[in-house]
Amino acid sequence: MKASARNQFSGTIKEVIIGAVNAEVHVGLKGGETIVASITKESVENLAIETGKKVIALVKAPQVIVVTDFGGYRISARNQLEGTITDVKHGAVNTEVDIALPGGDKIAATVTNDSVETLGLRKGQTATAVFKAGAVILGVQS
Amino acid sequence: MKASARNQFSGTIKEVIIGAVNAEVHVGLKGGETIVASITKESVENLAIETGKKVIALVKAPQVIVVTDFGGYRISARNQLEGTITDVKHGAVNTEVDIALPGGDKIAATVTNDSVETLGLRKGQTATAVFKAGAVILGVQS
Amino acid sequence: MKASARNQFSGTIKEVIIGAVNAEVHVGLKGGETIVASITKESVENLAIETGKKVIALVKAPQVIVVTDFGGYRISARNQLEGTITDVKHGAVNTEVDIALPGGDKIAATVTNDSVETLGLRKGQTATAVFKAGAVILGVQS
Repeated sequence: MKASARNQFSGTIKEVIIGAVNAEVHVGLKGGETIVASITKESVENLAIETGKKVIALVKAPQVIVVTDFGGYRISARNQLEGTITDVKHGAVNTEVDIALPGGDKIAATVTNDSVETLGLRKGQTATAVFKAGAVILGVQS
Repeated sequence: MKASARNQFSGTIKEVIIGAVNAEVHVGLKGGETIVASITKESVENLAIETGKKVIALVKAPQVIVVTDFGGYRISARNQLEGTITDVKHGAVNTEVDIALPGGDKIAATVTNDSVETLGLRKGQTATAVFKAGAVILGVQS
Repeated sequence: MKASARNQFSGTIKEVIIGAVNAEVHVGLKGGETIVASITKESVENLAIETGKKVIALVKAPQVIVVTDFGGYRISARNQLEGTITDVKHGAVNTEVDIALPGGDKIAATVTNDSVETLGLRKGQTATAVFKAGAVILGVQS
């Protein structure tokens, strides 16, 4: 698929929890990490989303927060993937930060330049990519 | 309304599906396209959202993904509007892509420069603007 | 916590409404404003989210819309915080707008340069920071 979403993870559906309007889908990545997606119940039905199915999970880079120190906090975002910063590309206002996960996948986050300075983001640093389940779009082969 | 959301579509509510906490609202645009919004049940009540009502649907440009080739994939995002790219405005890290829909509406998407190169985005190209129902804010005249 | 989310509000949980998959959490800020967060039911359980608990609410700047004139419209976004613009930082494509709330908190929004011109955004102006409940991540001390 040719899509502008910087993050496109291949995985397998591990669990589907259906609500009245929305559903929560757990996707296992090849490296062992899990991505949680919140999609509508109608999409689950339309795409025949079910355990064992191969999917891709799309996440736009501006939806991803970079955390370098939780300072004793636990957070509600369902996706918290720790890795190592492999690239920091500066722009005029925003910067793209790339984080490599242990399992081989890579996540891109767009953050403001101020955040890069405040957090002292640099290549080689350990960081956690954080994004909500609602930021994830799922794709299946038709 | 004067708001910074680049996308402000005028439409009419065609359907409202209520869940325990959230609701799904279908908005028909003048050109025949439909936009699906996921808002809280409380907002449906506060704004008296109901079939037939005129609304505006607001979507921020960074929430929109541009897809040029689905490569056999179907995706969970409820909003997938195909059109023609009318403008590609480059910045240092990000680019704004404008897509004209057949019905006359226009959608702006903010994507990274890397995506513009990878997808070969250019004026005149056919592309699909993709965004989740959760990215849509509805406005009604009070 | 060291996180790239530009907006990190300290507050106290005032109300928790649980649905089948998602939950809505109301957080009172020290200045009297309320922030509404939509998180999954599982996060409510995992973080022991309950009335009276201290939390931080994280919101990324690209998720925030700036409204200067509602023009008679009421909108579905659960978070609408009015304040005064204290800074407008221009980039090549995007601009960061800072809005000070009456209670002392500050909100950063990333908007396009076109919006800055269209809305005539400037320091000292009254503006409302608008964001959906789904854009909010909650953090609790563990």
